[in-house]
Amino acid sequence: MINYPNGKKQKLNESKISSANRGMNLENDLNKTNQYYLDFNIANIHKKPTPIQIVHVDYPKRSAAKITEAYFKLQSTTDYNGVYKSCAIDFEAKECRGKSFPLNSIHKHQIEHLKNVLQHGAITFVIIRFINYDKTFFVLAKDIIKFYENKENTRKSIPFSWFDEKCRVIPYNLINPVNYLKIVDELYF
Amino acid sequence: MINYPNGKKQKLNESKISSANRGMNLENDLNKTNQYYLDFNIANIHKKPTPIQIVHVDYPKRSAAKITEAYFKLQSTTDYNGVYKSCAIDFEAKECRGKSFPLNSIHKHQIEHLKNVLQHGAITFVIIRFINYDKTFFVLAKDIIKFYENKENTRKSIPFSWFDEKCRVIPYNLINPVNYLKIVDELYF
Repeated sequence: MINYPNGKKQKLNESKISSANRGMNLENDLNKTNQYYLDFNIANIHKKPTPIQIVHVDYPKRSAAKITEAYFKLQSTTDYNGVYKSCAIDFEAKECRGKSFPLNSIHKHQIEHLKNVLQHGAITFVIIRFINYDKTFFVLAKDIIKFYENKENTRKSIPFSWFDEKCRVIPYNLINPVNYLKIVDELYF
Repeated sequence: MINYPNGKKQKLNESKISSANRGMNLENDLNKTNQYYLDFNIANIHKKPTPIQIVHVDYPKRSAAKITEAYFKLQSTTDYNGVYKSCAIDFEAKECRGKSFPLNSIHKHQIEHLKNVLQHGAITFVIIRFINYDKTFFVLAKDIIKFYENKENTRKSIPFSWFDEKCRVIPYNLINPVNYLKIVDELYF
């Protein structure tokens, strides 16, 4: 083993960048990852724009139309979709603090959408990041749908341990921070 | 032949609904079609929300966040995508008046997007409706990309005759007004 000049080994966790230090959230990490996939000709996957209900627009002369009253709407589908190796890709991404994932983080109509695209043959999943555990999971749509549809279930959240046992962890690296297609490759190709 | 009580035949073009009388534009027709595909479990294809650059949001107490300054942005991708028979579907839709389709109706980065998703194996096309001719064409992405990339070409528009010779017409009916998956089936499945 080669030691550092001062004779001390660098501790492993010193080189590890904690999620707090990354200064980026899951959405930014996914944008970076999708841009990486695009730049390296791996896949074409995009975040959909946030849906807005426009109420009033001004059209000032000689300048761009200005929206002066609008409201956020709920996304009726998932946030991300695209194409990878001819297959349709469709997923939702959620960050959570704490020790469990609140079920109400994903709306009922989004669960319906996941079921529907899964049935039409899209590669469908949910990416869930536990900020405090510094872990990002690849969750198969069928597994999370089962949890939501289990009528005997009285829980309002899914504990971290469920993800830790059942789901794969998406590896982190700086240039491609949420390399979820690595897991897609392992599972589907 | 059975005649009407007054002894006169109804003229064929009287029963035909002209595009003007339909009172609907291509976007509405496509929304209706995509809803039909969803309801009858044929495919899951959606229009992406219009991208908006949000500048200012008010958060009044006890009511929804109100966007008070925002601007329209250009869509960096196409407007429509989804999944059909496990395949990724990606397309743009444009209406045009007049006798030719202006090339600047589709932005350069949208042509780049069409090329890119085509290369990744998505079923990729453009739907172009000529309002005055009452015809809606299914245009293969490769054909329209070729037109845009032909450097010897000095035209600023594609004449109706090009579409009429080269492209399939998408049939119209009231409940499923732009049944483009019929053409997809003929060409791909």
